Amino acid sequence: MLDISASYTDLYQLTMAQVYFKTKPKSTAVFDYYFRKNPFGGGYAIFAGLENILEIFENLRFTEKDLEYLKNYGFETEFLEYLQKFQFRGTIFSAAEGDIVFPNRPILQVEGNIIEVQIVETVLLNMLNFQTLIATKASRIRYSAGDKILIDMGLRRAHATGGYFASRAAAIGGFDSTSNVKAAEDFNIIASGTMAHSFIQSYGNELEAFRDFALVRPNNCVLLVDTYNTLKSGLPNAITVAKEMERRGDQLFGVRLDSGDLAYLAKKTRKLLDEAGLEYVNIVASNQLDEYVIKSLNEQKAPINVFGVGTNLVTGNPDAALDGVYKLSEYNGDPRIKLSENIIKVSLPSKKQVYRMIDQNGMFYGADAIGLASEERISKMFDPFDNYKNLELKKFDHEPLLHMVMKNGKREHPKRKVSEIAQYTKQRLSMLPDEYKRFQNPHIYKIGLSEKLKAQRDRLISEHSF
Amino acid sequence: MLDISASYTDLYQLTMAQVYFKTKPKSTAVFDYYFRKNPFGGGYAIFAGLENILEIFENLRFTEKDLEYLKNYGFETEFLEYLQKFQFRGTIFSAAEGDIVFPNRPILQVEGNIIEVQIVETVLLNMLNFQTLIATKASRIRYSAGDKILIDMGLRRAHATGGYFASRAAAIGGFDSTSNVKAAEDFNIIASGTMAHSFIQSYGNELEAFRDFALVRPNNCVLLVDTYNTLKSGLPNAITVAKEMERRGDQLFGVRLDSGDLAYLAKKTRKLLDEAGLEYVNIVASNQLDEYVIKSLNEQKAPINVFGVGTNLVTGNPDAALDGVYKLSEYNGDPRIKLSENIIKVSLPSKKQVYRMIDQNGMFYGADAIGLASEERISKMFDPFDNYKNLELKKFDHEPLLHMVMKNGKREHPKRKVSEIAQYTKQRLSMLPDEYKRFQNPHIYKIGLSEKLKAQRDRLISEHSF
Repeated sequence: MLDISASYTDLYQLTMAQVYFKTKPKSTAVFDYYFRKNPFGGGYAIFAGLENILEIFENLRFTEKDLEYLKNYGFETEFLEYLQKFQFRGTIFSAAEGDIVFPNRPILQVEGNIIEVQIVETVLLNMLNFQTLIATKASRIRYSAGDKILIDMGLRRAHATGGYFASRAAAIGGFDSTSNVKAAEDFNIIASGTMAHSFIQSYGNELEAFRDFALVRPNNCVLLVDTYNTLKSGLPNAITVAKEMERRGDQLFGVRLDSGDLAYLAKKTRKLLDEAGLEYVNIVASNQLDEYVIKSLNEQKAPINVFGVGTNLVTGNPDAALDGVYKLSEYNGDPRIKLSENIIKVSLPSKKQVYRMIDQNGMFYGADAIGLASEERISKMFDPFDNYKNLELKKFDHEPLLHMVMKNGKREHPKRKVSEIAQYTKQRLSMLPDEYKRFQNPHIYKIGLSEKLKAQRDRLISEHSF
Repeated sequence: MLDISASYTDLYQLTMAQVYFKTKPKSTAVFDYYFRKNPFGGGYAIFAGLENILEIFENLRFTEKDLEYLKNYGFETEFLEYLQKFQFRGTIFSAAEGDIVFPNRPILQVEGNIIEVQIVETVLLNMLNFQTLIATKASRIRYSAGDKILIDMGLRRAHATGGYFASRAAAIGGFDSTSNVKAAEDFNIIASGTMAHSFIQSYGNELEAFRDFALVRPNNCVLLVDTYNTLKSGLPNAITVAKEMERRGDQLFGVRLDSGDLAYLAKKTRKLLDEAGLEYVNIVASNQLDEYVIKSLNEQKAPINVFGVGTNLVTGNPDAALDGVYKLSEYNGDPRIKLSENIIKVSLPSKKQVYRMIDQNGMFYGADAIGLASEERISKMFDPFDNYKNLELKKFDHEPLLHMVMKNGKREHPKRKVSEIAQYTKQRLSMLPDEYKRFQNPHIYKIGLSEKLKAQRDRLISEHSF
């Protein structure tokens, strides 16, 4: 499902590309990928989608069908011949996939021939914006859930085939498993699942349905207990079957609550299970869960062991999208900025490096320093808008965030597995103080500019001002 | 991008399928697809995604890689051999794609072998829920926009490859064109686009950038005028270039406003264009548009000719998903219902037909009648919960909504084009009174049950009650 043709782009990329092709085919450009606002009103985001982008870029081609189609849109023969041979041969510097990232500083920089870097814009934004949104949502749910088990069950409500990538991003953000078999298979995530109401309804008799299921699938067996009545029917039947399983040497993994007051039902369920000597049987809960509901369930001490999360995870509800953008920062070696009436939206010129400051306790300090890529070391960083606010950086470890991940169209490192990326995210999150993770008014992770970068930006602003 | 393997499903479908395979491999089932709540607080939805589902179902197979993978999950050899030969051979009755649909009544019914109809549940929900959400959003935006031109520009913020299907659904709901080249190519939608800020920035000089663009792409040429300053720079430069184009016998199609107060800027822009004798130049507006902003712009008489809509369209913002479900209504010929503590959520048993009532003016009457598929004609319909409310149906034309679209796994009709579906949607919307289209407190399109269906449902409820 990663077999994406180069025509998966906006028409205007091709229109602009043809103009470049005719007027300045050898020009080079640098584009920055960054976003402007943390999703979900939170204090951070988890960068995801990079490995997919690298794979897509290595194989990006226009098909014969694409080229045939583009003839109808008035593209010239010469340009279509160029597209026929199109390959992305640019160079990418990027934060590691799974790293913690913040607004208004480059996460990724693409440099190369202007035609090539323009054509890839759309698919890059399409993949990174979405997966970063979902990985961030997943990490928030993980934060609420503590060390309880989290299952992604969202495929049926995901945005069509976007669900494939949602499951991948959910694993990076901290989910333990997914119901999505295809994603599990391709991305090496653990697949898991329970049973549907229809299974029980097909039997008419709940006890019989449970029995057949437990006989055929004794491992990781979870019985859904709310089809008729959770406490009066589902649970007693599940207990009967759990006892029958014990006699065969099997163990029921869990019962699943999918409606009603989950905190109340979980407590009642735990009590009934324990009284039946089934202390080992887990309680799985689902039904419109998100980070807030899970937080509330945990605060109520609902004895739930596994949370199944669907719609709110895979759609990133209530945020529709991450507002990631791709802005020109250099053209033929010259710095460029995008102005805006809103000073905060003015972009940063030139190729840059972002340094994460690590304090003496090994924790993220609370501000990234951004300098020109050509600078050796930044000794002092300045508030982007207030020269009186500045900070000496001697006492911190400086960790450069952007690394070369693709050189002239070829990947620099072997492919990283989703499990490795997820492990990295977990480790990085442990370095982020809690103030940035809380849901209400989280701390703002600041930006400091090097003296040189700031001077360059201010010069460009003044040149363009009216 | 429709090449979807059968493992694009939830693991529990396969788990349940194996139990069916071991215990009742020849059983049959009927499932209903319907949703519970109109999206966006509106009064209707536009059913979309059917053609894709039919195409996917005809070709749905497990790959060797899928089967190899499933071995790790404890599926038995016999069942894996079954999956190797898996084909969907079920029969589907469905509303026409593009029809107007309402909550809590069947839109589509799948019948066939229980294993097959269970395995396809996830991909069916995944595709229909999303495209119905987006087609509905598009139709709301169309309602606000009147006969102005609407361009889908959302690909960069869409949920990864879900964006491919979003563009398709947008066309069904009433959009004129899309920036998404791949979707345009595969679904025969008109592709369109303008230019990006980066194009102008790469030149540094806005006038030069406009000039090159207009020279290379004189047809449908739209100049983006807000990179530096819309009224002081972008527009004067665009006018200069438009005049140069006139001298070459070309015509500038439009200028695009992408920031600031669109109503104010559009009025100023129109005035300046007209004063320059450029009455024919269109004004294209974009920037976080949705049905409410477009309504407001039209109410302010902003002289905008073309709206470019992105994020809010392709993500269905603010709704994360359509809550479509797939519920068992018949098993081996016996009716089945899904109970719920909430009576409205109790499903309807058996194979059914839905009749749209057409009044003497050729308009939708305001209630669908639902009967058993075996009933010849429904003469009277009853409120689902109140027997005293009922209605004689003699005076209406009865239009059956569900038609056989797939028989034993084979499509019944040739594939319908997106343009035909969009045309059908437009025609059907013209039959829906405005009260159901308005955004604030729209009328509720009611349900009436036939006497037989109601009696059957009530009998099943009482059998299962505790």
